Amino acid sequence: MGSSPHDSYPPGLSSEEQEYLLTNLKDWSIAHGLAVRPAPSFVQPDQDPAGVLAATAPVTLFPSLFPQNCFEDGLAIQTAYNELYSAIARDEDWLKGIVEELVDIDEFVGKLWQTHLAVKKEGYVQDLSLGLFRSDYMVHTDQTSASSSGLKQVEFNTIASSFGGLSSQVSRLHKYLLSIDAYPSSATSIIKEEALRQSKSASSLAQGLAAAHRAYGPSKTGRSLCVLFVVQNPERNVFDQRHLEYALFEENDVRAFRLPFEQTLLHTKLDQERTLLYTPPSSPSTTYEVTTIYFRAGYSPDDYPEEKEWDARLHLEKSRAIKCPSVLTHLAGCKKVQQVLATPHSPHLKRFLPDDKVASKVLSTFAPIYPLDDTEAGQEAKKLAQNAESASRYVLKPQREGGGNNVYRKAIPAFLEKLPQTHWPAYILMEMIEPPPLTNAIFRNGELQRGGVIGELGVYGVCLWRNGADNKDAGQILANWEAGYLLRTKGDQSEEGGVAAGFGAVDSVCLVASGSPGA
Amino acid sequence: MGSSPHDSYPPGLSSEEQEYLLTNLKDWSIAHGLAVRPAPSFVQPDQDPAGVLAATAPVTLFPSLFPQNCFEDGLAIQTAYNELYSAIARDEDWLKGIVEELVDIDEFVGKLWQTHLAVKKEGYVQDLSLGLFRSDYMVHTDQTSASSSGLKQVEFNTIASSFGGLSSQVSRLHKYLLSIDAYPSSATSIIKEEALRQSKSASSLAQGLAAAHRAYGPSKTGRSLCVLFVVQNPERNVFDQRHLEYALFEENDVRAFRLPFEQTLLHTKLDQERTLLYTPPSSPSTTYEVTTIYFRAGYSPDDYPEEKEWDARLHLEKSRAIKCPSVLTHLAGCKKVQQVLATPHSPHLKRFLPDDKVASKVLSTFAPIYPLDDTEAGQEAKKLAQNAESASRYVLKPQREGGGNNVYRKAIPAFLEKLPQTHWPAYILMEMIEPPPLTNAIFRNGELQRGGVIGELGVYGVCLWRNGADNKDAGQILANWEAGYLLRTKGDQSEEGGVAAGFGAVDSVCLVASGSPGA
Repeated sequence: MGSSPHDSYPPGLSSEEQEYLLTNLKDWSIAHGLAVRPAPSFVQPDQDPAGVLAATAPVTLFPSLFPQNCFEDGLAIQTAYNELYSAIARDEDWLKGIVEELVDIDEFVGKLWQTHLAVKKEGYVQDLSLGLFRSDYMVHTDQTSASSSGLKQVEFNTIASSFGGLSSQVSRLHKYLLSIDAYPSSATSIIKEEALRQSKSASSLAQGLAAAHRAYGPSKTGRSLCVLFVVQNPERNVFDQRHLEYALFEENDVRAFRLPFEQTLLHTKLDQERTLLYTPPSSPSTTYEVTTIYFRAGYSPDDYPEEKEWDARLHLEKSRAIKCPSVLTHLAGCKKVQQVLATPHSPHLKRFLPDDKVASKVLSTFAPIYPLDDTEAGQEAKKLAQNAESASRYVLKPQREGGGNNVYRKAIPAFLEKLPQTHWPAYILMEMIEPPPLTNAIFRNGELQRGGVIGELGVYGVCLWRNGADNKDAGQILANWEAGYLLRTKGDQSEEGGVAAGFGAVDSVCLVASGSPGA
Repeated sequence: MGSSPHDSYPPGLSSEEQEYLLTNLKDWSIAHGLAVRPAPSFVQPDQDPAGVLAATAPVTLFPSLFPQNCFEDGLAIQTAYNELYSAIARDEDWLKGIVEELVDIDEFVGKLWQTHLAVKKEGYVQDLSLGLFRSDYMVHTDQTSASSSGLKQVEFNTIASSFGGLSSQVSRLHKYLLSIDAYPSSATSIIKEEALRQSKSASSLAQGLAAAHRAYGPSKTGRSLCVLFVVQNPERNVFDQRHLEYALFEENDVRAFRLPFEQTLLHTKLDQERTLLYTPPSSPSTTYEVTTIYFRAGYSPDDYPEEKEWDARLHLEKSRAIKCPSVLTHLAGCKKVQQVLATPHSPHLKRFLPDDKVASKVLSTFAPIYPLDDTEAGQEAKKLAQNAESASRYVLKPQREGGGNNVYRKAIPAFLEKLPQTHWPAYILMEMIEPPPLTNAIFRNGELQRGGVIGELGVYGVCLWRNGADNKDAGQILANWEAGYLLRTKGDQSEEGGVAAGFGAVDSVCLVASGSPGA
């Protein structure tokens, strides 16, 4: 392609322009809670034992370019994804098959499944289930790959989808910076009011929690009702969560409490009808009835250092509170599910999305994912993975949740050679998404880095549905909406002196005509 | 008086209650910009060279008890004070007399007056003047003193009245803490929704700036209009100012820029009609026409380290922009003015407030202030000050602006004995205001101190008026309103291990029936 105005995006800044932009960014971010607690490497805990310091959250200086059709596709498809994952979460039989393939390689998934079985044995007493989902995508530019260009899914989060609070604020920040002319006039043909999109995520996710809270119905114990945020402790990203809590309270008049996951059994109990009762330690004489449990912890094996955390998860799952998410919904988000849906020629998608048109739209956002097993697709995958040429279009990912340690492209054959074949099924092979080359500047911990970046679009979804095989309303969807977006941008490691890997930041979109940004 | 529920205010907190209250206070404050940049003693500049860290602003844990009638009196009288001080600022002859008494002892006042004279020589080209005032009071409990109990004025600020931004947020914070039951139930007979008062200061002061901006009229140069915040640099209390700027922009659609005072001559110039033109260094090709100059610097001698700052003040004063405040309005706020108004049997008040009823209301808020000169009142004062018994009801204050170093009560006679009599007129003698005993807990830089405190009520006022002797509209008041309040609370030094002196915090009122708190 020839040169376009986007080639020089974002614009360069004179030192005075940069000073003006950064000064306004730093002040606005703190004035509006676009903040994090500082990392221990930045502020040592003994310097601020009371924890009163905060810092500007990692943000991009500019909204990143994003193809408008991809952005709109992502938002438009979210309700179908909500439907898909709620259907998966309701399909215990199908999930059982998935889990059975994983139990030997992923203890965490096995423990989640056991938790489900333990509750099932006693019988579930709450048939409503809430999902605050986030479907993450990258823009794929069609080059040598078989799949078409457009939005491709990176992962689907069914638990603790984060950054909905900060995302609303960063899109506001970028709009503000535009409105005070902090972006140089040379860029105003690209960064303009109508190209920016305000994310409604904080407000919309809070509405989701409020919908569950109301659907729970009145207290059976005559107590005040509340939502419980089950959280990690300490939590540096606390303001992200607080924005949801404040929106829940101010816009929906719903009280919420924060409960560190490891203190669950200390401060909650179940009555005879398994109503979840929460007694705030600050107010031992007042006990609340919990309508909805919102997990911002418990999603990773690290959250379960001892058996008592599994007891806590079981305790919460058994309760009559609506879980966001339930264990089955949590399991629906495991990578294996994404893999079997995205395995070429998979029959699974139509099981959950009978409408062909809807299913094909969802399908178009899948990058091919192969198992490394003895199935036909698995055989195909092994060939692709062992050949350096074909492997260069793939990434090898552990199936284990919270695993990390992906193996990329040409490093795959050598990695597999050293790995006993019996361990191969612990990995999946996924076609690399090839994002368009993009540049931005990321401001993080006071450091400014400019260079090549990769943007990941997350689309939030709220879904409230009814489980329960014996229920005439089983499968009924009470709420289903797209709930705003997140753009998360990180260094692409492409350049010396560029944006460091893992140097991620919250961002917002600057929409451009399709295919424009560098494509 | 007998014991009352207020004797045990604020309530004690269990460690769990305190944890809940502080955690919510710390998170809410950062999420809502109730923040300051940390002091260098807390975070050394080389630790955070980019300046991304912020901390919870010093706040009280509880809203302080405040007599309802005093609070309402303070708000109700503000428009009369606005009228009074605008009338003083318009009365050059009268101010000249004040200044002449001060020139020998206060170079700063002399320089301000010379600035006025220099502009007068060329002729003022802007006859509108804006005041964003704050009248500060303490509750006086009548004991041995001659004056009646009630609200007594501490000082009247005509320039750079601060904390209007944070005050709105701290009253929101206290309401929030009440609404989430962070105050123990034992206190809810006192701290209750209807006893709290939201301060509208941020929004209302911004409306004042917007009123001036609009009254300025259209640009004569075809340029975009703006308000200029003339600020200190660096400014730890920047979020206080930013809240006004954001309200000005969001609620009134008026752009503002921040200009460090010492850079005034670098970035502004006057055209032939003395229109003030501002060219942001970040945007050298765009020049704005300044409608209104809002001084958050220039109020103290420290802001004028060199002659060029006086050149800058003159340059701004000469301009056609509306000054908030003008030099004459600034001078109207000097302590000497307060003194001559509050000198017993002073004839001055009725000069400015011809309506006896209004004047007597204002008069009732004055604590007697005496000069230490050869007038009749001065002779009386010298007797009071040299006698340890009578001196114990007084404070000796330097007349010099920004002076500090007050001498209290029984220390006064010894102090005067060492001071040559020729220097005595540099001081005024003011009857001590005897505030009711109050207790609160102040949270500042992560430290919590509980103990005896003194609360100072500030009432904001907006006044926009027309000067100009030759103008048929001279004296016309275009805007005059009460603009919210500030409660500032600091340690009273009364107890060992209590709240340290100078350990001040922003606060909000918890209204009680008159005379209740400890009186």
